[in-house]
Amino acid sequence: MSITVPRAFQAAATTAGLKPSGKPDLALIVRDPGAPPAASAAVFTRNQIVGAPVAIARRLRGRVLEGTGRPASAILVNAGNSNTATGEQGERDARACMAAVGAALGREADEVLPSSTGVIGRLLPTARIISAVPGLVRTLARGPEADAAAATAIMTTDLVPKTALREWSAGAHCIRIGAIAKGSGMIAPRLDSAARPVTPAATMLAFITTDAAITSRALQSALDAACAGSFNRISVDNHPSCSDSAVCLASGAAEGVGGSTLSVMEEGSAGFRRFCDELGSLCTDLATQIVADGEGATRVFRVRVNGARTDAEAEAMAREGVTSPLVKCAIHGRDPNWGRIVTAAGNAGIGFDPSEAALSIGPVEVYRAGMPLMEALNDARLAEAMAGPQVECVLTVGRGTGSAWMMGCDLSARYVSINADYTT
Amino acid sequence: MSITVPRAFQAAATTAGLKPSGKPDLALIVRDPGAPPAASAAVFTRNQIVGAPVAIARRLRGRVLEGTGRPASAILVNAGNSNTATGEQGERDARACMAAVGAALGREADEVLPSSTGVIGRLLPTARIISAVPGLVRTLARGPEADAAAATAIMTTDLVPKTALREWSAGAHCIRIGAIAKGSGMIAPRLDSAARPVTPAATMLAFITTDAAITSRALQSALDAACAGSFNRISVDNHPSCSDSAVCLASGAAEGVGGSTLSVMEEGSAGFRRFCDELGSLCTDLATQIVADGEGATRVFRVRVNGARTDAEAEAMAREGVTSPLVKCAIHGRDPNWGRIVTAAGNAGIGFDPSEAALSIGPVEVYRAGMPLMEALNDARLAEAMAGPQVECVLTVGRGTGSAWMMGCDLSARYVSINADYTT
Repeated sequence: MSITVPRAFQAAATTAGLKPSGKPDLALIVRDPGAPPAASAAVFTRNQIVGAPVAIARRLRGRVLEGTGRPASAILVNAGNSNTATGEQGERDARACMAAVGAALGREADEVLPSSTGVIGRLLPTARIISAVPGLVRTLARGPEADAAAATAIMTTDLVPKTALREWSAGAHCIRIGAIAKGSGMIAPRLDSAARPVTPAATMLAFITTDAAITSRALQSALDAACAGSFNRISVDNHPSCSDSAVCLASGAAEGVGGSTLSVMEEGSAGFRRFCDELGSLCTDLATQIVADGEGATRVFRVRVNGARTDAEAEAMAREGVTSPLVKCAIHGRDPNWGRIVTAAGNAGIGFDPSEAALSIGPVEVYRAGMPLMEALNDARLAEAMAGPQVECVLTVGRGTGSAWMMGCDLSARYVSINADYTT
Repeated sequence: MSITVPRAFQAAATTAGLKPSGKPDLALIVRDPGAPPAASAAVFTRNQIVGAPVAIARRLRGRVLEGTGRPASAILVNAGNSNTATGEQGERDARACMAAVGAALGREADEVLPSSTGVIGRLLPTARIISAVPGLVRTLARGPEADAAAATAIMTTDLVPKTALREWSAGAHCIRIGAIAKGSGMIAPRLDSAARPVTPAATMLAFITTDAAITSRALQSALDAACAGSFNRISVDNHPSCSDSAVCLASGAAEGVGGSTLSVMEEGSAGFRRFCDELGSLCTDLATQIVADGEGATRVFRVRVNGARTDAEAEAMAREGVTSPLVKCAIHGRDPNWGRIVTAAGNAGIGFDPSEAALSIGPVEVYRAGMPLMEALNDARLAEAMAGPQVECVLTVGRGTGSAWMMGCDLSARYVSINADYTT
């Protein structure tokens, strides 16, 4: 129950033969033709190395936001090959796939956003993809089966498919947002709508549909904010991929009582704020699913930093906390190693006074005013908090109003074997 | 053969009972009394959380550089307890140990630099240390045995002691620099002589002696430059410790032919430049030993970035390369995973054009103009380079003159077990 729950969307998936496992590897998400005010928005990795699909999709997004191009109405996603480090041929290959979908749907190729994830440095087997497109278009459908098929086809090292759904009433209308996502390794997205060149490779991808009525500019602004507070707050391995992308298509076709017309949301309106809240909540849900399925992960943990001068400073300190291999190993070993967490934050290059600092793990304060609270380290509730599936750490660094959280997963021997045995 | 080879230095070590293993854990390095123009210099971690010894030693260094305090003439180092996160009592404890050494040597306590490494958050067992001081002073000696005893006593998770020595002629004099160091985990030093508060916990420590005749200011400048090009270029786990320190004592007592007097080196002179070169080479030697003994390491690798706009940009890109867990796992698995190295550099937030980029591993170019060179990946010399004890990667990112290297070690399952099983 995800991307085809919002009105005017269909999806399909198939096996084009890109994954050595022979599992499904190609998905198509399509907005119905002739749907009312439509919009699209997207954010991409900040890596300097980007795959051909990201380079193309970023240019298309620019035209949509300038008003010189139509909003995207379809997304073609393949897993098994990221079409990255493939030079000019990579762009030609992506364009050939876009053209095939456009022809099959009777639309312009530029309405089709390409997205690829998988090995890098190998040319995309376009013939296999293009041959599979007519079948994909023929089997487009709505419903749980179509949603599940798409969510599964985009997986790479993921162990479980990831989906989310939000639904709420806005006056006479019921508005919905649905999404699928993938990601397990090479996960530390720094998604960004700025035009700076960027790129990475195991990749997080999120594809979001909504039947809200919204302009592409407002949708972009909502997506930027939602990603900044969700996908950009997780790290599995602190290595942003070349293909990290989040895309949102809007149909404006939300169901209304008695056929009433849905008016386009204005940025800053109460309806828009609600939409932003729901989109943010949905993206946080997906981000949490991604980090929980991180390569080799047995548990997740969140570091919240409070009392910093600014939110950005708090975020930088929290980021050091969730990316430190020493902290990640401590979480793996269920060791309430307050020292590693506090010193990790101390490495962000941001001044704070240890005598103002405090750290809680779960319900137990373990460090205050620059020193550990030794009795607390024997508290049974602390051992319980460390053994749970999600460990919550709250670090206070002063009396400022800056606050932020980052979420990571533990570092296990299985992470090493997954990534040391992988072949280029 | 290390710290007592330079003239006018002695060392001793003993077991004070700070390590649960019962191994030697206390070392003393002393410059002879009445030695000619003496000097001292030191650099410390940039972490915001620092141990009491670092806080004290940093203040003492400030006075030496201002000319309001005497150069340090002794260093008391203990392993097993870092005296960090111990509040005001921690400073009192460090001062008590300094006073004990000062009394036994007949010198001011402020000439004794304290240094501690080991667990954090536990008060220093000062009585044990103070009781051991008279014996330490009584057994001060020169020679290989004293050097080896000191190098061994400062070890924590290190598997091997680390020493280095340089010796060269300057006119009628023979000048020497000797050093011992320790470090295995919590290693990514960002040593800095600036007054900014800074600190971390498994820690790298380096203690350097020289019989060069030099002012404390010139020695500080030489040490700053040497650390920037050596210790600050290594990472085991990208987590700088609260206690990282490098200290250099100079005696000015170098051996001269026929009793000729050694004049004090002027900053900028040829003699000073030679001293800086030798000190830099010695520190690079120690840094390489530290990373090779990194927790769980089976091999080291170096990422050199050439063609950047500035050296600082090159260093930032190289740092991403040696700290990425994905790159470290690839090195562990002997996988020439060019994609992970190139995309890691792409995450430094620094613009470069992939079409200008190239990567070599050992003697084999594997990536050029944004694409892999597929035949190269089957080159037998590449497999040989990946299997060696030190893998050399050279990444070119453009046509600039900026260049830098960083050295790291692989990530193994043993790293995880060492750090997940460690108890706070």
